[in-house]
Amino acid sequence: MRYALRGGKRLRGFLVLESAALHGISRAAALPAAAAVEALHAYSLVHDDLPCMDDDDLRRGQPTVHVRWDEATAVLAGDALQTLAFELCCDPVLGPAERRVALVAALAKASGAEGMVLGQALDIAAESAAAPLTLEEITALQAGKTGALIGFAAEAGAILAGADRLPLRAYAEAFGLAFQIADDILDVEGDPEAAGKRLGKDAGAGKATFVSLLGLERAKARAKDLVTMAELALAPYGAAAETLRDAARFAIARQS
Amino acid sequence: MRYALRGGKRLRGFLVLESAALHGISRAAALPAAAAVEALHAYSLVHDDLPCMDDDDLRRGQPTVHVRWDEATAVLAGDALQTLAFELCCDPVLGPAERRVALVAALAKASGAEGMVLGQALDIAAESAAAPLTLEEITALQAGKTGALIGFAAEAGAILAGADRLPLRAYAEAFGLAFQIADDILDVEGDPEAAGKRLGKDAGAGKATFVSLLGLERAKARAKDLVTMAELALAPYGAAAETLRDAARFAIARQS
Repeated sequence: MRYALRGGKRLRGFLVLESAALHGISRAAALPAAAAVEALHAYSLVHDDLPCMDDDDLRRGQPTVHVRWDEATAVLAGDALQTLAFELCCDPVLGPAERRVALVAALAKASGAEGMVLGQALDIAAESAAAPLTLEEITALQAGKTGALIGFAAEAGAILAGADRLPLRAYAEAFGLAFQIADDILDVEGDPEAAGKRLGKDAGAGKATFVSLLGLERAKARAKDLVTMAELALAPYGAAAETLRDAARFAIARQS
Repeated sequence: MRYALRGGKRLRGFLVLESAALHGISRAAALPAAAAVEALHAYSLVHDDLPCMDDDDLRRGQPTVHVRWDEATAVLAGDALQTLAFELCCDPVLGPAERRVALVAALAKASGAEGMVLGQALDIAAESAAAPLTLEEITALQAGKTGALIGFAAEAGAILAGADRLPLRAYAEAFGLAFQIADDILDVEGDPEAAGKRLGKDAGAGKATFVSLLGLERAKARAKDLVTMAELALAPYGAAAETLRDAARFAIARQS
């Protein structure tokens, strides 16, 4: 579990802390929620990398858990990381019980059969589908696979503060899609060493991606538009949301 | 997910409803907690049955999920069943937010790296250990693998009522161990059709079990003693706990 949590961008944890700061919640009072979303994300990577799923041997610059140990260990470590995520949401430092329950419910909704796991299931189903996915289908797939958890992370501060979640939800929707398009671009143009994982895989597998559907230039333009939308969604917070705007710009500028 | 939840004894869900009734909580007000423990248990069976784990092809009288579909589906269905369990614990019908958070925390503790998953990891490690487990080691292993979740189920009513959990914990510890010894006895003496799963597996694999360590007669005597201990632990509840006492007796009389 510790090994699987090593490294990574910690983008989702960062989003939790920033959205908390936006609502006057200290880093200390939001940290277990940030750790929770990182544990949840790490579990999803460990399971997605399994031979029966995406079958990856490199992640975050180190061998995947089932390569370093074995498949049973990877299944169990992922299972316990998911459990840990929900346990962390119960930490009293996060505030009143009502808010913590709302956090658990939001994390469950984002990561379960209507969120992340649905996206992953659609992704696997697509591999054996007769025709490649359409742009609409791949957008829906990614909204689950990566968007839902990014949405949870961005909204976490509002949940903990009992505040309106809609502006952060709009931000996260645009951000999450831009992030995924950037991932597809990185898969084609990126440096495997900087990325810490195998690249060129989707194109090699003939899988529909935003790049295969839109072409490289239109994909880049679309990602840029989405970042602008994400920035605009933060208007209600004024200058206080500048770091979140930076994060949206980072989503398409990153090398890993 | 629906398929994996079919059938079974629903023993854990029953324990939740009974321990709730013992604290004056209606069936309706405890049902999501009962459903949660059944979803959690179903997830653990789907993952334990995977080829990289116990590699079972029959469960609850039907093909296991990875046999009926495939391994990826089994991993994802299990993952989403775990998520569902935590989501169910947030249902407002369960009462005040404080109690629901306590329920989430207790379920996480029972099922994660200090509970059920630890037990399963010890079980897998035992397969490649140089020597068979001792009685002490197998007792610790089973306390995690099956005991922790049975403990959660028995304590759930006390958690929801904000009442003392100790008598039900003592009941569940004795019950859980008796239940597991009965499982080992069933593995040797049971009828596969009634059990709905493959039997004789542990003995065939030369795995240490309560039966291999104690012998059949001493294992039966030990299970019976534990049932008596479980019954005695319920003394504080008087006649109201008679159904839970019946459940303890059922633990060693059952055929599946």
